[in-house]
Amino acid sequence: MREVLATYRLFDPKGAFEKKAEGIALGLTIGSWTDLPALEQEQLKQHKGRVVSIQESGRETEYGWEADIQIAYPAANFSADLPAILVTVFGKLSLDGAVQLIDLSFSEDLAGRFPGPKFGVAGIREKTGVYDRPLLMSIFKGVIGRDLAFMEKQLKAQIEGGIDIVKDDEILFDNPLTPFEERVKLGQRVIKESGRKALYAVNLSGRTSELKEKARRGVELGASAYLFNVFAYGLDVLQELAEDPDINVPIMAHPAVSGAFTSAPYHGFSTDLMLGKLVRTAGADFTLFPSPYGSVALERSAALKTAQMALDESVPFKPTFPVPSAGIHPGLVPVLFKDFGTDSIINAGGGVHGHPNGAQGGGRAFRQAIDAVIAGQAIADVDQEDLKMALQLWGSGK
Amino acid sequence: MREVLATYRLFDPKGAFEKKAEGIALGLTIGSWTDLPALEQEQLKQHKGRVVSIQESGRETEYGWEADIQIAYPAANFSADLPAILVTVFGKLSLDGAVQLIDLSFSEDLAGRFPGPKFGVAGIREKTGVYDRPLLMSIFKGVIGRDLAFMEKQLKAQIEGGIDIVKDDEILFDNPLTPFEERVKLGQRVIKESGRKALYAVNLSGRTSELKEKARRGVELGASAYLFNVFAYGLDVLQELAEDPDINVPIMAHPAVSGAFTSAPYHGFSTDLMLGKLVRTAGADFTLFPSPYGSVALERSAALKTAQMALDESVPFKPTFPVPSAGIHPGLVPVLFKDFGTDSIINAGGGVHGHPNGAQGGGRAFRQAIDAVIAGQAIADVDQEDLKMALQLWGSGK
Repeated sequence: MREVLATYRLFDPKGAFEKKAEGIALGLTIGSWTDLPALEQEQLKQHKGRVVSIQESGRETEYGWEADIQIAYPAANFSADLPAILVTVFGKLSLDGAVQLIDLSFSEDLAGRFPGPKFGVAGIREKTGVYDRPLLMSIFKGVIGRDLAFMEKQLKAQIEGGIDIVKDDEILFDNPLTPFEERVKLGQRVIKESGRKALYAVNLSGRTSELKEKARRGVELGASAYLFNVFAYGLDVLQELAEDPDINVPIMAHPAVSGAFTSAPYHGFSTDLMLGKLVRTAGADFTLFPSPYGSVALERSAALKTAQMALDESVPFKPTFPVPSAGIHPGLVPVLFKDFGTDSIINAGGGVHGHPNGAQGGGRAFRQAIDAVIAGQAIADVDQEDLKMALQLWGSGK
Repeated sequence: MREVLATYRLFDPKGAFEKKAEGIALGLTIGSWTDLPALEQEQLKQHKGRVVSIQESGRETEYGWEADIQIAYPAANFSADLPAILVTVFGKLSLDGAVQLIDLSFSEDLAGRFPGPKFGVAGIREKTGVYDRPLLMSIFKGVIGRDLAFMEKQLKAQIEGGIDIVKDDEILFDNPLTPFEERVKLGQRVIKESGRKALYAVNLSGRTSELKEKARRGVELGASAYLFNVFAYGLDVLQELAEDPDINVPIMAHPAVSGAFTSAPYHGFSTDLMLGKLVRTAGADFTLFPSPYGSVALERSAALKTAQMALDESVPFKPTFPVPSAGIHPGLVPVLFKDFGTDSIINAGGGVHGHPNGAQGGGRAFRQAIDAVIAGQAIADVDQEDLKMALQLWGSGK
């Protein structure tokens, strides 16, 4: 049956989860059931929500007992787009006190209506020519109010340091000093001159209805990837960008603003659903999320599950590259590798630019650490200047 | 100065709010300051965030001491669109533990870049011909899986009962039984036949890039208003609909999914900012939000403040009609009037359709209650059959 299966974490002081689950399954679909005449029941059967399971955790919280319940919603009730699905499964319900939407599964034919990533892990490996190690990404630093020459210097240093993917700061929008098109052209030129197969993810920003055309124009001018603040727009906007055949470059989903609905302990969405599963469904080739190591941190289990959802082979989409971000320095490469494996991206800002030898040194230090870890060598034993300096400055991780 | 002023509710175990505020003001703008050479400080001054105020409440929470801090962000840092503004003021910060964005104020010239409502309270009063009382709205019930004949019957009953505005259920999307265009045509015909100046807000749904064209087509076919699940799409999508001169009908913002980021006590956005101020900025003519009276309820202070923000005369937009919703029956009209005044909309689902005399009776009961309240009469004293039946069934409010 074509349906979407939603898993909620519910809380109830009395633990009356059966009643609550039935109320949701009916309330979010046909409204009532037992008082309908038999003929109408027959007509509406295919639209009725269905309680699939109720699993009580036995945990008592400040909002009452906790249980995970699953409800199946017939696809006949909504159009095959994420706004309709989210409104169906979590529209009114999101307003009903403590409740979290922690998973969504689409039946196969419904999933087939969504694009998933255009490139995914394999496509990005091909574009960067890196097949056997985590990729290395870095972020421009302090570019607001700066000009193209400043960005060019930073971009060159990062690429020369061995960075595979450079991304715009997500708070850099179209502006007179470094306009979108000029950044695209700058990136294309600097990467070409470097002789490397690096990518530069330019922040695709502006008004919603202008994004597609802007992205197409950028691609014509040589854009190699886009950064997109999907949660300031909407998942469907990301999906429309991913579906456009003319926007044939990878798209990086940034988690900006998502903390507003993924951080609270008893409300909103789970991080892995939003930053792992749904951005992938909508077509993100990369997903950035807080690493478990920095000051802006995600719980380790949530970060690992987000990466898992991005890569999960049981869904019919290309895998999305997980990018655990924030607080990353070369000393953390072994733990990053242990936690996230080869199919992940090591992403740093301060850990690249703050290196005593600048962004080149920072890039080299990361690459040296990655090579060591891949070779099964302890990073403390590596006799290379840049890595040594980094370990001295930031320590060798936890 | 062109800027946006953001007010955050912060929590800190040590109460180190000055340091925290400075960190935000710099971290979300130019990154660093004190270690910059004087010349660069001069260049970047106009981009630097500024701590405007810090107000400690003296309250200690599970996340530490509480304070409201205000930070000014120069408009030079972002393009004049809500996605860029939200990413700037609450992008990364939303991911940084317990923190709420509770207000945003735009300098006047920046506010001038946003449309606000096309019709607002006065425009909707003109369209409905109702000038001296709260308007009365009702919602279709149990329409999933039903056909146009079923909807026609419900619509007629509601209009005949004296309802001013009928809205689609927000979970009714485009579907073979009751397609968007057929609902539009049905609404136009039924309203015309009734001889009344009622409105029918059809749910505008589907893929983002097709909404404008669909809305324009609907207007050509006689649509009188749109319901829009703005939080499943994005505020900028609402704004683009509101800005389109061809979509010259009022737009009703539905709060579906917004609970995910407005319900938690220490995370996300305040309800009044999102459902009051920002939907108005983006152009909603109506804003629906949970009433303080039902089972899906908002705290009374939050509901009142949301209505206040929707109507606030200090912002340069037409006022948005506040629509406190859920749990409304005729017995609540006096308290609704006391809490929300004349410039509000009384909106009911079960409180109309569940009346012993059907939706006609429910509508009449509400109108009788409204007339009584406007005349300064106690509703219990009204000698009218429908209202009496309603009060007997649902009580006379709290």
